[in-house]
Amino acid sequence: MLEQEEQRDELLEKIEDLISRKRYAELRDLLLPLEAQDIAGLFMELDDKVPMVFRLLPKEQAAEVFVELDSEEQEVLIQSFSNTELKEVLDELYLDDAVDIVEEMPANVVKRILRHADPDVRKSINEILKYPDDCAGSIMTTEYVDLKATMTVEDALKRIRRTGPDKETINICYVIDEGRHLLGYLSIRTILLSEEDDVVGDIMDTHVISANTLDDQEDVAQTLNKYDFLALPIVDTENRLVGIVTVDDAMDVLQEEVTEDIEKMAAILPGDKPYLKTGVFETWRARTPWLMMLMLSATFTGMILTHFENSLAAVPILTSYIPMLSGTGGNSGTQASTAVIRALSLGEVRFSDLLRVVWKECRVALICGVCLAAANFVKMMVVDCWLLANPTVTPAVAAVVCCTLVGTVACAKLVGASLPILAEKIGFDPAVMASPFISTIVDALSLLIYFRFATWILGV
Amino acid sequence: MLEQEEQRDELLEKIEDLISRKRYAELRDLLLPLEAQDIAGLFMELDDKVPMVFRLLPKEQAAEVFVELDSEEQEVLIQSFSNTELKEVLDELYLDDAVDIVEEMPANVVKRILRHADPDVRKSINEILKYPDDCAGSIMTTEYVDLKATMTVEDALKRIRRTGPDKETINICYVIDEGRHLLGYLSIRTILLSEEDDVVGDIMDTHVISANTLDDQEDVAQTLNKYDFLALPIVDTENRLVGIVTVDDAMDVLQEEVTEDIEKMAAILPGDKPYLKTGVFETWRARTPWLMMLMLSATFTGMILTHFENSLAAVPILTSYIPMLSGTGGNSGTQASTAVIRALSLGEVRFSDLLRVVWKECRVALICGVCLAAANFVKMMVVDCWLLANPTVTPAVAAVVCCTLVGTVACAKLVGASLPILAEKIGFDPAVMASPFISTIVDALSLLIYFRFATWILGV
Repeated sequence: MLEQEEQRDELLEKIEDLISRKRYAELRDLLLPLEAQDIAGLFMELDDKVPMVFRLLPKEQAAEVFVELDSEEQEVLIQSFSNTELKEVLDELYLDDAVDIVEEMPANVVKRILRHADPDVRKSINEILKYPDDCAGSIMTTEYVDLKATMTVEDALKRIRRTGPDKETINICYVIDEGRHLLGYLSIRTILLSEEDDVVGDIMDTHVISANTLDDQEDVAQTLNKYDFLALPIVDTENRLVGIVTVDDAMDVLQEEVTEDIEKMAAILPGDKPYLKTGVFETWRARTPWLMMLMLSATFTGMILTHFENSLAAVPILTSYIPMLSGTGGNSGTQASTAVIRALSLGEVRFSDLLRVVWKECRVALICGVCLAAANFVKMMVVDCWLLANPTVTPAVAAVVCCTLVGTVACAKLVGASLPILAEKIGFDPAVMASPFISTIVDALSLLIYFRFATWILGV
Repeated sequence: MLEQEEQRDELLEKIEDLISRKRYAELRDLLLPLEAQDIAGLFMELDDKVPMVFRLLPKEQAAEVFVELDSEEQEVLIQSFSNTELKEVLDELYLDDAVDIVEEMPANVVKRILRHADPDVRKSINEILKYPDDCAGSIMTTEYVDLKATMTVEDALKRIRRTGPDKETINICYVIDEGRHLLGYLSIRTILLSEEDDVVGDIMDTHVISANTLDDQEDVAQTLNKYDFLALPIVDTENRLVGIVTVDDAMDVLQEEVTEDIEKMAAILPGDKPYLKTGVFETWRARTPWLMMLMLSATFTGMILTHFENSLAAVPILTSYIPMLSGTGGNSGTQASTAVIRALSLGEVRFSDLLRVVWKECRVALICGVCLAAANFVKMMVVDCWLLANPTVTPAVAAVVCCTLVGTVACAKLVGASLPILAEKIGFDPAVMASPFISTIVDALSLLIYFRFATWILGV
């Protein structure tokens, strides 16, 4: 693993030294044993020397490295390629990688790529580009091994040996009929452990789990994960096999979707670039909309406070507990909403569980609220009243604050747990109902509860 | 896919109907084509009928279903097994699954399992159990295919055919010497695409990326994901091959670690059970410590407010903007900390990037702050002053609030972006430096800034 920063820095120094001394053969030997992902990582630091170093790599490794680069670096490289070089790299790419690259390039680069791709490859790229982003069709590859049900294991092995080199995976082979309808699948293990004269149709597994080209890519990835598959076949509406999604791409989708969820939960509009690659204005555009909306919706809490101005003037010490109350309310709500949002996205909770969730959160809220209230009562009496010698902190004031705590925690947990589930039911993204959104609602609720108790107990 | 709730409910009804009419052969035929994961999902709803239905399944499928059950259901089943039944299930399990089960069971059940396992299996289970939780050794399996460098491809295929049925995967085979030192690896594809008389040592890839038994399981999973491997070899300190981690287990680890991170970011102590399976008291124990700590640390904001009591009494309208200011500050900080925490866990940001991150957040904060302040100024003048006809909302008051907004957003972004990086540097978990923690700090800072500007501009 090249994880260690020192190792990486050392290597970079060596590379730059070799470049400056024009020791290209040595440089090539240094890069040869490295994994494509690590070379791509090094390229990020080499800037304008990248095209030169790239040309040192053997064709196959060059293509592997190319796939791992950021789209900006890929563009720079393509611009520097001669037509022959471009064609060489394109020939080595897997189809789904080629599609990914085409999707990220500006129109003129796309035209140049398509002009130099094989006619077959061009056709397939255009096919896949037709599928909307985020659906199974857009992440699948059409380079899989297909077998006929009438083949013997010997025939199948011959076919795998012949077509295998161009396929993304040979670990799972799919059995189709004349009309390309999906009949079953076979793992390479089953094939190897069978007799040479066994017939594919007899030994294949006919209970195939497949997805549709238009299914959401996250569902496809979750299915692969759930069933521990190495690939999932993708079919069209008539059950004709059109491609497969492999486990490595599914893992990437899961990671991306989690990042998106986390961003939404923090009131950020999701982007698709790494943190340091996102420009200042892009980051600003992703963050301002929710900040603005939440800021303006805080108008309500302001109005509540203005409304109860006289109560606060009568017992000024009440003001100093407002941040604690709204903070604790916000945190309680965040805990509940986060737990429920994650459970929803892992498929552990459905809409039909709403009542179970609410009942659970009620009980948790009660115990949490009472514990916090008790701790807070002791703290107010010992620290605020006695140690800080503030005579306005009376047991009655402490009672108001503590009763509010119990009520706020209860409201927060209920709102936090139920809003995400309701949002999902009506087709909204539950991740948006997270911390910032819940806190804003809970802020207003906690103030209303606070002044209610203040009126009852203190009579203000 | 059995994702759809209706489909599942229909199936459940059918199963319960067949049970009540004692049509066991039909029930067996109904379950046979289903995937183990789906049967396990159905079992959750069948309660006390589970042992009976479980006995209907053929041995191999039964073991697959058993692995997918929750540990509580597994325990109930084991208690209901005769010794022969227990032995049958154990014989069918893959080693790493057996270890997972043993890890979750109470001591008396573990004893019973180990007593009925094969002596070889018992020894291997005990080996793996020695590794600490969360390390590569604890998630690896010792059931891999090993080859010798001197074998021909023909020999290798024979060995794979002979030992394959008991191995977790045959897709990647590992080449070792007499002392079990790892020399290289071969994919089944390379083997199949080579000539029968090629020698393993000549065609193997000798640039093996491996992990150590004591490496963190998350690092191992990230490595598998980064290099798109189907399995990663695990070696001891002397580079002797002791096991492999397969991609399906790596995906599970990544999902678990993300859930843990998300929980920590919401101030919840991470647990390892699904939401609805966690008891009320367990949930309470996971949530109270941070709530309590954050509540008590809000003492500081209270003290600041008490200190400036007279300023608030002089210009009471200032109070009504406190929730908006602390809310916006909290949200700004959350955005920055969440973005940085995720970037850290994906390896996009390191400690050496601290200055770049801070510089980026400074600029983002400035633009965000100015936009928010401008919007807020307009809103205060139009809504609060004019529409709500509040004469105390003067341009001077609006200026105080807007200047505070700019200052608060800047502080929040800087604190939010830098604390997680600093936390990681000193060996803390950056995920803990998220929303709730940052909000508490930013609350206090925003009040200090607020009263500073109030003193300057309003002279209170």
